[in-house]
Amino acid sequence: MNYAWLRNWQALPQGCATPAETAREELRLAGLDAGLREDAALGEGWEIVEEGGRPVVHGGSRGLLYGAYALMAARKTGLCLPRGVQQPRYTLRMIDCWDNPDGTIERGYAGRSLWFEGGRMAWQPERIAQLGRMLASVGLNVLCINNVNVGEEGARLITEDLPELARLAAAFRPFGVRLMVSIDFSQPLRYGVETADPLSPAVLAWWTARADAVWAAIPDFAGFLVKADSEHRPGPMTYGRSHAEGANMLARALAPHGGVLVWRAFVYNCLQDWRDTHTDRPMAAYETYAPLDGQFDDNVILQVKNGPFDFQVREPISPTFWAMPHTRLALEVQLAQEYTGQQIDLYAMNPMWREWQTELPVSLPAAVAAVSNLGRDENWCGHPFAAVNLYGFGRYAWDPEVSPEEVIRTWARLTYALPENQEDALCLMLLNSRSIYEQYTAPLGIGWMITPHNHYGPDPWGYEYSPWGTYHRADRSGIGIDRTEKGTGFTRQQPPEIAAKYADPAVCPDEQLLFYHRLPWDYVMRDGRTLARRILDDHREGVERVEAMAAVLRELELPEPDRSVALSRMERQLQNAANWRDIISDFVTRLSGVC
Amino acid sequence: MNYAWLRNWQALPQGCATPAETAREELRLAGLDAGLREDAALGEGWEIVEEGGRPVVHGGSRGLLYGAYALMAARKTGLCLPRGVQQPRYTLRMIDCWDNPDGTIERGYAGRSLWFEGGRMAWQPERIAQLGRMLASVGLNVLCINNVNVGEEGARLITEDLPELARLAAAFRPFGVRLMVSIDFSQPLRYGVETADPLSPAVLAWWTARADAVWAAIPDFAGFLVKADSEHRPGPMTYGRSHAEGANMLARALAPHGGVLVWRAFVYNCLQDWRDTHTDRPMAAYETYAPLDGQFDDNVILQVKNGPFDFQVREPISPTFWAMPHTRLALEVQLAQEYTGQQIDLYAMNPMWREWQTELPVSLPAAVAAVSNLGRDENWCGHPFAAVNLYGFGRYAWDPEVSPEEVIRTWARLTYALPENQEDALCLMLLNSRSIYEQYTAPLGIGWMITPHNHYGPDPWGYEYSPWGTYHRADRSGIGIDRTEKGTGFTRQQPPEIAAKYADPAVCPDEQLLFYHRLPWDYVMRDGRTLARRILDDHREGVERVEAMAAVLRELELPEPDRSVALSRMERQLQNAANWRDIISDFVTRLSGVC
Repeated sequence: MNYAWLRNWQALPQGCATPAETAREELRLAGLDAGLREDAALGEGWEIVEEGGRPVVHGGSRGLLYGAYALMAARKTGLCLPRGVQQPRYTLRMIDCWDNPDGTIERGYAGRSLWFEGGRMAWQPERIAQLGRMLASVGLNVLCINNVNVGEEGARLITEDLPELARLAAAFRPFGVRLMVSIDFSQPLRYGVETADPLSPAVLAWWTARADAVWAAIPDFAGFLVKADSEHRPGPMTYGRSHAEGANMLARALAPHGGVLVWRAFVYNCLQDWRDTHTDRPMAAYETYAPLDGQFDDNVILQVKNGPFDFQVREPISPTFWAMPHTRLALEVQLAQEYTGQQIDLYAMNPMWREWQTELPVSLPAAVAAVSNLGRDENWCGHPFAAVNLYGFGRYAWDPEVSPEEVIRTWARLTYALPENQEDALCLMLLNSRSIYEQYTAPLGIGWMITPHNHYGPDPWGYEYSPWGTYHRADRSGIGIDRTEKGTGFTRQQPPEIAAKYADPAVCPDEQLLFYHRLPWDYVMRDGRTLARRILDDHREGVERVEAMAAVLRELELPEPDRSVALSRMERQLQNAANWRDIISDFVTRLSGVC
Repeated sequence: MNYAWLRNWQALPQGCATPAETAREELRLAGLDAGLREDAALGEGWEIVEEGGRPVVHGGSRGLLYGAYALMAARKTGLCLPRGVQQPRYTLRMIDCWDNPDGTIERGYAGRSLWFEGGRMAWQPERIAQLGRMLASVGLNVLCINNVNVGEEGARLITEDLPELARLAAAFRPFGVRLMVSIDFSQPLRYGVETADPLSPAVLAWWTARADAVWAAIPDFAGFLVKADSEHRPGPMTYGRSHAEGANMLARALAPHGGVLVWRAFVYNCLQDWRDTHTDRPMAAYETYAPLDGQFDDNVILQVKNGPFDFQVREPISPTFWAMPHTRLALEVQLAQEYTGQQIDLYAMNPMWREWQTELPVSLPAAVAAVSNLGRDENWCGHPFAAVNLYGFGRYAWDPEVSPEEVIRTWARLTYALPENQEDALCLMLLNSRSIYEQYTAPLGIGWMITPHNHYGPDPWGYEYSPWGTYHRADRSGIGIDRTEKGTGFTRQQPPEIAAKYADPAVCPDEQLLFYHRLPWDYVMRDGRTLARRILDDHREGVERVEAMAAVLRELELPEPDRSVALSRMERQLQNAANWRDIISDFVTRLSGVC
């Protein structure tokens, strides 16, 4: 069954070789009388004009497909089409899947892998076509299919399993989706090369031969993604080489084919001693990469997580974005709700992404990538509403300033046919969902009170003595880390005008207060409440807001099985929210004495 | 290679059918000129008398073997033999192995199972004979070979795999060691019976047929061990039946064969809500079993853990021992150092067991059982010194009042040939090892600050919001649970003369203070220090004592590989002790403000 926001399109396009052909077939299947006029100069862009009483889509081959989907969506929703030529803001609009060859997905909450099982590739052509259609319908164009933590079997994708990879690439090709794979930096060692030192000619030769083979099999292959020297992964530091040296070596193997080398900037000390109060994990990426600005080859993309920690509900924008004007950067977000409810609790992300744009110029990233929330579940994303994030990411990748209201409204209307007041209620619920989740889990920017390892539910002490560099240092006097110049100096990594917004607790927005400052429990907030009281109140109000959402949800006339799935997950969210409220409140009370 | 305290006896007895024959063969192999005179009336007892200038062992068949080993040990150590007839204090002296058919051992710290691999039985005859000899040499006579958490493969031991079980039983028979197996209370369900209700005639019929088959294959089989209605195991409560009804049904199937049914009294709410401050886990066993006193059949043995929690470094004696005068009870101890250092940190147990005898009359238990610390490691117990606990348990099972000094001295001399001052140093180290471990991990009886799940290393908050019923409720004002009549009422379960020793903090021994009482951080102890200061001091001193042990260990001229193994584990113990000191100190400081 097709699903998500495209659920009503039952028939799949067959036998198309190019996106332009797919566009024609999709319009035919949809019964839509529209013209297609290919204009290679438009590239991925498209424009729809009225000609002779019917719409005509102009665009390059992919642009035609994107335009066709836009036309079909407008027909379904009744919403207006945009005027003028639409061009995507980012050329590379990537989905990173953390799928393992054994069929599991790291941080996957929607079932098993759609293309791996038992150590090999295995997939249903119909589901791949549905997914290709879904991705193309919101203009996403690159899919990295395997976990950045690459094991022996994952490494085979560019060697023994390359023919399988080519077959999957062919299945996505009609939808304009190009494949990428995560590679193991030390992979030459598995194939008889005696080192993986990036300055060794033998290593470059091995990768060059590999790249030649991959592009021979898949001429439109996108490139490689690398997680190196990060959380126990191998990397150039083993050989005393910089990340620029490591990335450039790979990039040179890919350059003749037009491939990109995406290098994740997720390096920090994951064996920190909790007794060490000088090391401050959110400063690690900047410290590692800012000095390398200008040293990366043109076809290297440095992929930087949105925040300096790791996909918490609230983080500052990573200062690395401002620190590397001579480097192509990708913004990495996470659709998989690893720390944000795991596709059980509601958490629509466009409102969060839109907030970032008030601070992060859209020009700083050169590309965008999102960790996938997809899996083999019939509804693709585990929770039927979690699809709003995959949909919304496509919209965001085309226009980071798109309004969350419009994204959510369009997704809701494409997905369901609810009476207007119910659609309004659903949209409002999703618009507020992040704020609600934040309020019952981690108000005031504290972060990392989530259960270690599985990252669901509260454990306010779980990271305090761990090696992960994520401490709140709460005691009977107060809570938080001073990250200003008087503390760890994180704010020195930020542009001065941004640091100025946060470095003084009197002006720092409440939502980020405890990221930047250590404050006593009796610190008086701008609203007159003490810090301890405010945390207690927030958690209580957060739960009340979940209860209100649950009441709204029960009234929505959703189709089955969405209704049952959404209601049963809401029961789990209610339980989770109550746990957060009670445990964090107990934590605050034990330390502060305030109850 | 033979090992542990019997390492010098290289040759193994061959072709013996009975313990008496084994006795004769062992004496011959040891080159010991001694007589054997079988006297069935002595049963397991033995006496060694001088006749015609040579020693003669009198005893029943097993008694002869035990006496022969005693003679050999005395010859080796130069220590005196006891005078008069030696009879074991407990008839059933059991080792409970938590071995899984897949070859792993639950809470095993000495390698994989000695008799399971890949879902089936698989063993080396030589190692089984060595183990039989080790067990017999300290008079242990029952071995339960599989985990009390019985899965599908474990359940097959009394059905499809019974021929394999019989072969293993035959291998242990010459050493007077009888086998027992853990069974799954719901096992009839796997074999077509529609219920496991203990009052169902079909269920009794199934178990009766099973017992008949088991004893037909193994005439000297010991019996069944059952963990029911405990930590998610099935049991009679599923059918609204009491544990007496459940146990007696099984016991009646075994009675015609002289088998015993050992029923573990380890029932508590393992899904407790941490918000529930009324339920007090250490009260659970008494509440469940005391009302059933007198209802169990004669061949039921209720196996009660030494303390009311679960093998912590320090616990009160379980009040259940005094509450069931009309029930046969077994005392269950744990040689596997689950919570006490995992055979990395030194922890000799005889000093702890001896302490119990100052309070627990030796007549209250009718039997003793110990969770095994054995595994496939060449040295049997992971740490070469951990064998002292297997050895010591045999000695304890014969005489609970045996002095720890004698046990440890004899073990050390049987195991090593150290110069006298080094042997003294080793013995002192082992004698103090429990006190040292206690001091750096859990002084004052607090317990449960260990890392959840793996149970090694400190995590003072790890159990505070868990479902296991193990809370210290520490906050800025103080720490501990009031278990007196003013609190949960645990002391009401104790005999009044025992409760009187603990119910008043002014007289309660320091080592148990925080098991019984909730006290403020500034509570002044008898030595004049505050509670907070005392905890900080204890952890620091504990680490200093480990450092002193390490210095002693480095000087010991132990044979290899023992020396290397002991030294490398001591490095881990030093690290572990420092972690305990630093994390618990930080915990106390954050809450109390004392540093």
